[in-house]
Amino acid sequence: MNITKQELLYEGKAKQIFKTDHDDILFVSYKDSATAFNGEKKATIAGKGRLNNEISSLIFEWLDKQGIENHFVERVSETEQLIKKVTIVPLEVVVRNVTAGSMAKRLGIEEGIALEQPLLEFYYKDDSLGDPLITEDHIWILKAATPEQVDTIKSITKRVNQELVQIFADCNVRLIDFKLEFGIDNNGQVLLADEISPDTCRLWDAETNEKLDKDVFRRDLGQLTDAYEEIFKRLRRQ
Amino acid sequence: MNITKQELLYEGKAKQIFKTDHDDILFVSYKDSATAFNGEKKATIAGKGRLNNEISSLIFEWLDKQGIENHFVERVSETEQLIKKVTIVPLEVVVRNVTAGSMAKRLGIEEGIALEQPLLEFYYKDDSLGDPLITEDHIWILKAATPEQVDTIKSITKRVNQELVQIFADCNVRLIDFKLEFGIDNNGQVLLADEISPDTCRLWDAETNEKLDKDVFRRDLGQLTDAYEEIFKRLRRQ
Repeated sequence: MNITKQELLYEGKAKQIFKTDHDDILFVSYKDSATAFNGEKKATIAGKGRLNNEISSLIFEWLDKQGIENHFVERVSETEQLIKKVTIVPLEVVVRNVTAGSMAKRLGIEEGIALEQPLLEFYYKDDSLGDPLITEDHIWILKAATPEQVDTIKSITKRVNQELVQIFADCNVRLIDFKLEFGIDNNGQVLLADEISPDTCRLWDAETNEKLDKDVFRRDLGQLTDAYEEIFKRLRRQ
Repeated sequence: MNITKQELLYEGKAKQIFKTDHDDILFVSYKDSATAFNGEKKATIAGKGRLNNEISSLIFEWLDKQGIENHFVERVSETEQLIKKVTIVPLEVVVRNVTAGSMAKRLGIEEGIALEQPLLEFYYKDDSLGDPLITEDHIWILKAATPEQVDTIKSITKRVNQELVQIFADCNVRLIDFKLEFGIDNNGQVLLADEISPDTCRLWDAETNEKLDKDVFRRDLGQLTDAYEEIFKRLRRQ
């Protein structure tokens, strides 16, 4: 595609989003910054932006091949990609296959317990509120999405989980949990958006349970980029 | 009833529970202590135990007359009552008719907005976890209740809300929100339990919006017992 990057529209914790000369297309640049605990822990980690861009591009391309449409258009450089312009639904949709992280802490249960069936949780995407867990009834009160949009989101999310569990299992990685975001495109359609990377998934080596995701940063478990590089290497082999 | 109080079984923040010489009956003594913010704020307030015992007795008797069975047996003194023995379900069931308190703060919305329909929320009853908000899926993971029990709890809760909104409206009081607890009796039946008082309800004067509930203590708005006495006086007139 012959698309020109234009002015910066938005800068988030991990990405910059730019306009392009195409109304429906945005330009994303992945940053080398890592943040955790709602921005309380921060660092610059050289190579992180490249790895997330590469991994997310691979996964979105692969999901598209499986028939799961998403906002990804194409990777344009090591740290950059083009995406379809959508209006982001203010929900973080979390799927958990195994207990870990905030959910284990919240409910007072151990990490690492396989759930009988995947758990789907909604968090209200609002940094100033700390992205609180909410119920579907709260979604209606907040008018964060319509019941039809939530039905579509749940149905796409279940399919994404099935596909991701498989792709990671084939790499000898357990998909513990992950976060998705969705957008509404110009036609009013719900579209899978944001990124899917070790920043947004918990990924444990299937044999050793070694953490290969952002918990390496959150919990000071070693070199983040070594873990992300390992995920990228295994995914590329598929 | 000729029932004898025996040894203390349990002492909570606001009540003591004693065994009796009847296996299925417990003896409750309401304390003069007030606590808020998960026990961080504490005080002894003379007369509070009496008022909560009187008010809760009135409300439970009245609900029973409306066909909503509950654990209340009879008031035995100003600060004491008999209840049926149940195993408490570890859920706090909150109904909100108007936005206020933790829900307004959590979602970043103003207090005092009437909801289009009553909102029902479940909190996991665990002081050490700070009684976190949970979804129904979390209830299944925690095995806090069965789906059938939750259906029964929701159906009783809706009826209690309709009745309480009415009884308070007749006293010129708006029922903003309230918390219920449920127990399982010896026959495995779900039974409304705990207490219903200005400790567990938000009650605003229908004309002035004056707070006539525990927020007077939480937010240092005046003499708690004046507010509770006002609620007791209005309810008694009915």
